[in-house]
Amino acid sequence: MVTLSGDERLDYLLAENLRIVQSPSVFAFSLDAVLLAKFAWLPIQKGKVLDLCTGNGVIPLLLSNRTKAEITGVEIQERLSDMAKRSVAYNGLEDRIRIIHGDLKEMPDVLGCSKFDVVTCNPPYFPSQTKNIQNENEHFAIARHEIFCTLEDVVKVSSRMLKQGGKAAFVHRPGRLVDLITLMKKHRLEPKRLRFVYPKAGKEANTILVEGIKDGKPDLKILPPLFVYGQDGEYTEEVKELLYGNKN
Amino acid sequence: MVTLSGDERLDYLLAENLRIVQSPSVFAFSLDAVLLAKFAWLPIQKGKVLDLCTGNGVIPLLLSNRTKAEITGVEIQERLSDMAKRSVAYNGLEDRIRIIHGDLKEMPDVLGCSKFDVVTCNPPYFPSQTKNIQNENEHFAIARHEIFCTLEDVVKVSSRMLKQGGKAAFVHRPGRLVDLITLMKKHRLEPKRLRFVYPKAGKEANTILVEGIKDGKPDLKILPPLFVYGQDGEYTEEVKELLYGNKN
Repeated sequence: MVTLSGDERLDYLLAENLRIVQSPSVFAFSLDAVLLAKFAWLPIQKGKVLDLCTGNGVIPLLLSNRTKAEITGVEIQERLSDMAKRSVAYNGLEDRIRIIHGDLKEMPDVLGCSKFDVVTCNPPYFPSQTKNIQNENEHFAIARHEIFCTLEDVVKVSSRMLKQGGKAAFVHRPGRLVDLITLMKKHRLEPKRLRFVYPKAGKEANTILVEGIKDGKPDLKILPPLFVYGQDGEYTEEVKELLYGNKN
Repeated sequence: MVTLSGDERLDYLLAENLRIVQSPSVFAFSLDAVLLAKFAWLPIQKGKVLDLCTGNGVIPLLLSNRTKAEITGVEIQERLSDMAKRSVAYNGLEDRIRIIHGDLKEMPDVLGCSKFDVVTCNPPYFPSQTKNIQNENEHFAIARHEIFCTLEDVVKVSSRMLKQGGKAAFVHRPGRLVDLITLMKKHRLEPKRLRFVYPKAGKEANTILVEGIKDGKPDLKILPPLFVYGQDGEYTEEVKELLYGNKN
């Protein structure tokens, strides 16, 4: 049982046997969140995982199928964090996923530093000073633009929350790769795995996935490219598997 | 006419109507040099181009087919720079390619700063403190290891030699991408184009190509991946075109 308000829907969470509360006018998860949830390294049996900018909780829900670790999601928008809490309850995952309504910058005080094995984040992609922001409703604007947190806030907090040797995984746009790598180095997150996502063969990448290790040794690997669509305009086999398949 | 000594050969320079002096025991160019020579932006009609760590001059020779600009190659090993000079003379390119035997770190004094439109460099890939260095002859050791120049020397000198708005293109290994990007930012070369080279589909990248603009605005593009071999073990069409084709 779940209470839906306004235009909220209870959507299927694709490959997983889960459902998620979404709303076209407030928040619906993107392919990027799914890619990040599959890309991030996770402990299998136990540990602590933190998802910042969790939105409607899509990443914690997806991660819960890959790990028995305790998962915490943090979201600054009360409406979204409420959707996330209802989805967690609907799926009976309250004992494994905790959703916190709060500002990620306060999490070192709220949750304590150096306690997590993994941090994931699909942050706002755009600077707060961009034109189209005026055409968006407040919920979208906050999720997409660096209004309440900058990229440096995200990287800095991620690093502080991680144990030494813990892993942070981020998804972002290619235009911010240089900033992201520079900030990760600055805040002790050594980039170790990098993957580029291309809409199709012959096109420039439109998404980057990067994982760093807190105080890790420099040794970056560039994973095989991921193509989203084939020449036939359909999802590639790899993306179908991520979205609809059963493998984790 | 060219004088060859020892085991030197006069090899065909692949797609170009050029020949190049090489020696299996001293220096022979690699696919990486060809990839860099095709990746770098060049002015067509005029300008000044500098190739650091030029070895036997393969990059200046390849570039000469794409531009009428004046090209300068710098090589610290006298034996290699002599091979480069003989190749330039054999191909009748003395009016367009100049080879300097010297230390790249002295080039700001020798050639003057801020005079070049483009700098290219295929630098030594390995730190000077690695095990296998003892098993190599001196010529290979110097070309492959950071004995006479570090990556920071290369990036710093490249930046100093470039005009504002000029472009620097480098080829390196993925393990040094973070260092390379960090050093480029430090020395005012804003990374603008990045391309990853994969030995074949499904494998990690083994080569990176990056181009930066001196004092450029941040806006990185990730170009489509380049696969060297197909599933059949043969060069892909794109690599055949780079190596044997006529398009520039």
